[in-house]
This record gives sequence, structure tokens and C-alpha cells, in this order.
Amino acid sequence: MSVIQDNGLILIIFKDRKYLKRITEGQSFHGKGGALNYSDIIGKAYGIRIGEYDIYEPTTEDIVMYAFKRETQIIFPKDSSFIVFKINAKSGSRVLEVGTGSGALTYMLAHTVGPQGKVVTFELEERHYKNARKNIEKYGEWGNVELRNEDVTDYFDGGFDAAFIDVREPWICLEKVRSLMKESASVGMIVPTANQISELLKGLQGGGFGHIEVMEIMHRKYKTVAERVRPQDRMIAHTGYLVFARKIDPL
Amino acid sequence: MSVIQDNGLILIIFKDRKYLKRITEGQSFHGKGGALNYSDIIGKAYGIRIGEYDIYEPTTEDIVMYAFKRETQIIFPKDSSFIVFKINAKSGSRVLEVGTGSGALTYMLAHTVGPQGKVVTFELEERHYKNARKNIEKYGEWGNVELRNEDVTDYFDGGFDAAFIDVREPWICLEKVRSLMKESASVGMIVPTANQISELLKGLQGGGFGHIEVMEIMHRKYKTVAERVRPQDRMIAHTGYLVFARKIDPL
Amino acid sequence: MSVIQDNGLILIIFKDRKYLKRITEGQSFHGKGGALNYSDIIGKAYGIRIGEYDIYEPTTEDIVMYAFKRETQIIFPKDSSFIVFKINAKSGSRVLEVGTGSGALTYMLAHTVGPQGKVVTFELEERHYKNARKNIEKYGEWGNVELRNEDVTDYFDGGFDAAFIDVREPWICLEKVRSLMKESASVGMIVPTANQISELLKGLQGGGFGHIEVMEIMHRKYKTVAERVRPQDRMIAHTGYLVFARKIDPL
Amino acid sequence: MSVIQDNGLILIIFKDRKYLKRITEGQSFHGKGGALNYSDIIGKAYGIRIGEYDIYEPTTEDIVMYAFKRETQIIFPKDSSFIVFKINAKSGSRVLEVGTGSGALTYMLAHTVGPQGKVVTFELEERHYKNARKNIEKYGEWGNVELRNEDVTDYFDGGFDAAFIDVREPWICLEKVRSLMKESASVGMIVPTANQISELLKGLQGGGFGHIEVMEIMHRKYKTVAERVRPQDRMIAHTGYLVFARKIDPL
Repeated sequence: MSVIQDNGLILIIFKDRKYLKRITEGQSFHGKGGALNYSDIIGKAYGIRIGEYDIYEPTTEDIVMYAFKRETQIIFPKDSSFIVFKINAKSGSRVLEVGTGSGALTYMLAHTVGPQGKVVTFELEERHYKNARKNIEKYGEWGNVELRNEDVTDYFDGGFDAAFIDVREPWICLEKVRSLMKESASVGMIVPTANQISELLKGLQGGGFGHIEVMEIMHRKYKTVAERVRPQDRMIAHTGYLVFARKIDPL
Repeated sequence: MSVIQDNGLILIIFKDRKYLKRITEGQSFHGKGGALNYSDIIGKAYGIRIGEYDIYEPTTEDIVMYAFKRETQIIFPKDSSFIVFKINAKSGSRVLEVGTGSGALTYMLAHTVGPQGKVVTFELEERHYKNARKNIEKYGEWGNVELRNEDVTDYFDGGFDAAFIDVREPWICLEKVRSLMKESASVGMIVPTANQISELLKGLQGGGFGHIEVMEIMHRKYKTVAERVRPQDRMIAHTGYLVFARKIDPL
Repeated sequence: MSVIQDNGLILIIFKDRKYLKRITEGQSFHGKGGALNYSDIIGKAYGIRIGEYDIYEPTTEDIVMYAFKRETQIIFPKDSSFIVFKINAKSGSRVLEVGTGSGALTYMLAHTVGPQGKVVTFELEERHYKNARKNIEKYGEWGNVELRNEDVTDYFDGGFDAAFIDVREPWICLEKVRSLMKESASVGMIVPTANQISELLKGLQGGGFGHIEVMEIMHRKYKTVAERVRPQDRMIAHTGYLVFARKIDPL
Repeated sequence: MSVIQDNGLILIIFKDRKYLKRITEGQSFHGKGGALNYSDIIGKAYGIRIGEYDIYEPTTEDIVMYAFKRETQIIFPKDSSFIVFKINAKSGSRVLEVGTGSGALTYMLAHTVGPQGKVVTFELEERHYKNARKNIEKYGEWGNVELRNEDVTDYFDGGFDAAFIDVREPWICLEKVRSLMKESASVGMIVPTANQISELLKGLQGGGFGHIEVMEIMHRKYKTVAERVRPQDRMIAHTGYLVFARKIDPL
């Protein structure tokens, strides 16, 4: 049983709205469903309905979506969960990320590789780097993330099990990233435009990569009325195109 | 560096075809690209191109998609990677699965929860149970999967961090599964038809569950020609609807 | 050459906004692009750029989307253009419509069947009937629409070339509509929910219909920047499911 | 009532298969449902079930999809019905088409503009031109199509109400097509790749066009079992991107 603790995190759901809060004894949440006194729930198990509020233990998704401060467009769960899988990050992996952004994927990778693994992530823009560091420090658990406010070009400690690139011109750092990857390892990339797919394919097909894949994932939510099963009226039509490849060498 | 070993697994890619093989010294693979003598590659690093064959170290996806013997419709990576994420399975989690099928999701869950975690999975049909057991035994790593050829009804060792149901009438075992879940934990379900969504919603809304979500994930692959960026001609239009909910109790 | 006339219709586009106006000599339009004096454009050809305003001759789409007053959810062009085609309405056809709604499909059918054809449309709710009548009277051209504020049950003048039903429970009037259709004619229906598809299929399969089809059409718009080709961020995820069938009898 | 005539067209549906035949007294159709003697049905109304065969009067869709001989990739109904609508072709319109292909869209345009309208269509490749002419001659009704086995460059009889371009490099003939269009008229284009969208946008934005739109239409079919409402397993993922624009001039 997970118990709600003073200074712990909670997810509050009120109708369609979600709030992620770090709670303090004596304080309270004020929303459209009235006041929620944190003292009333501290010491109780997560997963409780109190008035019109539902209180859950935050999942990785909840933290990334509702707690992380965003300075950049984040990679959405529909994409990031697939990316983690496709680059084959797993318990104990050492993963390279170029373009930390707000740290959403970084955080998910950190969860996946766990305490025995490591995520090394590069972010050139100081503002984004600082924001991502705050997000990771606030919500990360295992100290397995190394954030670097520098160019990956100056880094030489290779042998990564997997890599991901999320920068405007990923083709520029392809060769460098490749040199830091283990043989046979997978690299993933996300780009918003078809023009970038084209550039990326040229770079990847230039040499040293095989098993190239390009795809997009569409996520369509449905209403939850048993008598009226149907998709919601609107959806996110596009986040980015995903590109994957594997490192290969001639025998 | 991962080295190709005698009795190890390799993924062979020849044009658009993929083969997953356990290799033995002295034997060879015969495909449209000619013969591949395993003795030529044993002892080499993975990630090598030899003739028209590309040889990679198999990823979790490769194993599930190209090695697993399928007795049932498997849950595809586009869905399973999202499911693992949505039910918040992570390093160390104890996860309940009802409906092992061919064991594809089981295997992915096992990889996610790692050596400190556990997957307990139920399959009523003996034929499927035996097939799944073979798949898991052949490719699983950590002995963290407990396959049970029995009804979940007779199981009482609760406290699961997460649950997933993949049976024809998931609403029948909802209450039982709920009783085995930790407070605040997430349960996922997959159903192929809209009629089943309707039944499931009735069951979930009957009590004890909150934060109900219904969705579908569409996966669209693109061709990989830089000068002609475009989706492939055909795609998988439907695998199943995903349903998620969380355990909740009145305060 | 089509010339802009006093009391004629114009479509004004200013950036992403569109306005459909009936113009009067001496009056003007006031938008974010400043004032547009109608006197400056009357007598000119359509298709002119004046300041930041683009002035076009309205198409059928423009009229339905930007001029029609909506009292109900209208059938969108992506669906209505396909419906008109699937029920095989053409120049000279006599078409039955049950559920006029705001008259959007009615108007498109009227355009398709032309002066030699006829659309007979039924709307029970007086408020919707009056609104649709206003829309059709204002923008229709050929007096080929017969709007009836009554139940189709009381109508007996059969022999329709095609039929369309857009009411909440289309299965209720299926038999009646069938009796009004020519042999071999097509009927189309639109329903927002999967539960309704199920009911409709039962009705259609009950007898007298063949070649049953169910489908949905998704329409995804792209941004129009040559260097950044990509879909727009959001899209309409669902309007309705389309169902089609043809009248058949045993020999 | 439409009666099946000697030398007339019929659509035969047997389970999921469709056959479009011109029938002759005394002959018969031999399929998996056995023999169908045309003499048994000549003189009967369309829309009859005889054994396991359903016999319908062919619609425009049936003719284009099941009767037309294809030498090229045809434009599918989901796209062509929308194109006809977007370029505002209607009863009486004069429409320009560049790139006849197999004549599928040509035929649909001819049906839309009717006996008072006209479709002028250009096809450079003699083989395609001949095939399209055969298709149109066999199934067209009103002699309202002018097929030209020549370049549109040498044509000067302008004033078209609408235009459509379906060639590999549509941007090359944009200016010529524009010169043949009426003021304010719409032009549509279809291109399979995103790279072509990019080129087209550059051409269109170069001048003389406004209200530029880029989109794609996805068509997803469902199974027709009332108790198991769900999409079919596979779908066509891509046919082409649709681009539309309108002719505009400075005042």
C-alpha cells in the first residue's frame, strides 16, 4: 500500500482536469470542486475519492504531463513510450540523448534504465538546460541522469547502448552520435517536418546505418459513455515523424 | 561491444525481410541473398554487413515480432509499448496479466520490471499456455515470469502494482482483478470491438474505478526514399481499442 | 468572367479567417485588415486582392461552411461530398432526405441534381425546418428542393433514385425509406456512435438491403510552408460513421 | 424502375467480390456462386438476388472501380469525390484536366458537369490517352469529354470554371493552367510525395494564387457484423496529398 506522505506528490483529478501537487501538512488545494485540505489525506492510501476529487499516486505519465515545466515542445507519451521501446532501452542500459529540451524523454529513459543504468543528455541552450535540470532534480529518483550544457561534439566517452536525437538539424550530429554508439545499437530521432525526414534519410543512407524506418503514431481518444461509444471530437493531428536506424559496419 | 556467440541469437535483415535465428557453429542460413555461414560471424561484433545480409543483435521488438511462435493474435509493439507505460510498469514492479496469449506482452513486461520485478500471468487454454511458456523460456532472461494455466479467480496473492487484461470478456474478471491490485494502481485492457468497449465501460463505471480512458493507436510507416517522402501504400488499420482505469475507493 | 454585383455574395479571406457576405453598394466590411468598401469592388471580377483582403466568388463549400446558419451539427464537406457520390446522386436525380438538419447536405444534393432533379427533405423539428428553409431560400438557385416539416411516414410518392437518413434512430424509418426507393437504389446514413452502427446493421440485415458498407473518413490538413511540410497541429477526430446499402429483392 | 437490358451493364456481387459486366442475351457469367444466365435476368428490374449473386445497376463508383481498365494509378473515390467538390465543378461547368491517366476523374467530372458542361483533358502519353479514350467511350454518356493527346502548353481556349492537374511535376504547368482559368476559379492537384508538396507550394506562392490548402483524406472501412463493430484489419494508408488554390489578381 502506498501512503500519501507529507511533502509527497499527488495527482488530483476533478472532472477532466488534472493537477499534480507536492503537498504540505496544513495547506490545501482550492479548485472548482471546493477546498481539499491536505491534512485530511496525509497518512491515507493513494486512490481515494474525497468529495468530487480523485487522488492518485502520480505515474510517470502524470509527472511528465502535469508536473514538468515546459520550455520547449515536449515529446508526447504516445511517441516517447514507443521511442524507448524502439531504441531498446532497458533496465541497466546506458543511453545518449542529444537535445534535452524540457527533459520529458530524459525522465522516461531514466525510469526505464533504472538505478543500474545511465542517461547522458546534451542541451546547448542554457535556458532549456536549467529548466530540464530542475524538472529532473525535482522528480527523478535515482540520480542516473547526467545533464550537460554543451555540444555533444566535445564528448568522447562512447559505448552507448542506445541513442536519441531531438534537435533541429539532427543530420549534423549523426556521425558523432554514431561514433559514440555501440555496434548494432539503435538510434532514434524525431522531426516535425517532412523536409527534415528527407535530409535525415540522406544522412543515414550516407553510410554506417542500416534498418532505417520512418513512421508516425496517431493517438485517438474516445469518449467514455457506454451507450455512445465514439471518438472525441478533436485530436492532436501531428507531433513529429519518428526515424530509427541501427549502427552497422562492413564485416 | 556485443559479440556474436555460438548458440546466440541474431537478427538477419535481407532487403525487407527479417529472420531471427539461434546460430550454431558449422551451420548456415540459406536465403535469397545466398548462404551465410555462421562460422564466419561467430566471434565478430553484432552490427555487420556481410554480402547482402545485415546482422544485428535482436532487440525486444525483434524477438517478439520475429521469434515468438504465435498461437493467438499478439499485441503489437505500437500498443504494447504504450500499455507498459500507461499501467506504469517499471523496474521492480509486480504486474498481473490475465490472458497470456502468446506471451508477447508478458515478455515486454518482464523486460520492463527487470530482475527485481515479477510478472504473474494467467492463461486458461492449455495450448496457449504451453506455447507462451516455450516462448518465454526460450527468450526470457531473468526468470521473473510466473505462468499459470488456471483461472485468476482462484488466485489470492494480491498487491499488484499494475494489471492488464486481454480476454474476450474482460468485464467478467474486473472485480477479481481489482481485488488483487494495490490502491491507486492502473489496469489496462485491450478489446477488438466497440461493443466490448461498451460492456467494459459499464463494468468499470459500476464502481471502484476512476480515471477511465479509451483510445486507439494508429501506426503509419513511411517509405525511406529521401526524394520521395510518403507513407507506405497500406497499413494495419486496427488491432484493438485500449482501455485504462485506476483503482479508487471512497475516503 | 464573373463580376461582383450589388446584392451579390462574396467570400472575404483575411489570413486564416473567412467571411461570407452579401454586399450592398455604399456599405463596407470592417475586419482586422481595415475597412473594405463594397463600392470599390462592385463591377470588378471576382478573384481580387485588395489590401490584405482576398475576394473570391463563393463555392458550394464556402456557402455551406460560412454562410449557413447552423441549428444542428452539420455534415462536413469531407463526408457530404463522399455521400453524394456514394448514393449516386447526379444531374437529374430525385433524392430523398430524412432529417434536413440545417440543410447543408440538402444544399449540396440540390447542386448535384441540378434544375432537372429534385430533393425532397423531411424535418420534424419546426425550429430546424425553419432554419433550413431560410438557408436554402437564401442560397439555393433552382427551386429544386422540397422541404417538409413532417414525418416521412405519411409520405407515399416513391420512386427515389437515392436516399439519405440523418436522424438519431435511422433504423426506425429504414423500412419506410426503402419503400420509397427505386429498385437497386442506394441509401446512405450517418451516425455519430458505434452503438448506432450496431443497431443499423441489425435493421439493414433484417432484409431488403444488400451491399452494406460502414466507414469513416478522416481529413487531415497540412500547413502550407514549402520549407516545413507537416500536418497542422490539431484536427477534427470524428464527425460520424457513414453507412451505405442498396435496395435488393429476391428474383 | 430501371430494367436490365440486353447489352446493358450490371454489377454482380458475390460475397466480397464485385464484377461489372456488359451482358448479352444467351450468354452467362460463371463464378464461385455457379452459373448466372443473363437470359434469366434481362427484362427484370435491377436490384435482385438470384442464388448467391446480387445484381445491381452500376453506380459511377462501380464503373470507375470495376469496369475501367487501369494503365496508371487511378484517383480513388475518397479523393476524387472531394476534388470534384473542392474545385466547385457543377452542372454546366467547363473543367480543365491536365493528366488524364486512366480517365477515372475525367469520368466523374463528366458526370458532374452533365450534358450542358464540358471536360477538356490532356494526356501526353499515347498509351494512356488511348486507354482513357476507350474507358470514356465505353461508359460515358453525354459526349461531354474532349480528350487531347497533346501538351496543354499549345492550348489557348481559356475561361475554365475549374481545373485539375495530375502530372509528376505539376508546378511546371501551373502558370499555363492559371492562364486558362477564369478569375477566382479553383485548381486542384494531387501528388504522392511530400517533396512535391514543397515544390508545388513554391510555385503557387510565387504569385497569382491564393487560398492555398494542402490535405490528405484517410478512408477507413469497418466490418459489418452488428455484434462486433470494428474497423477492418488493413486499410489503404496513402494515395496522395491534395493541394488546392484559387486564382487571384491584385485589384
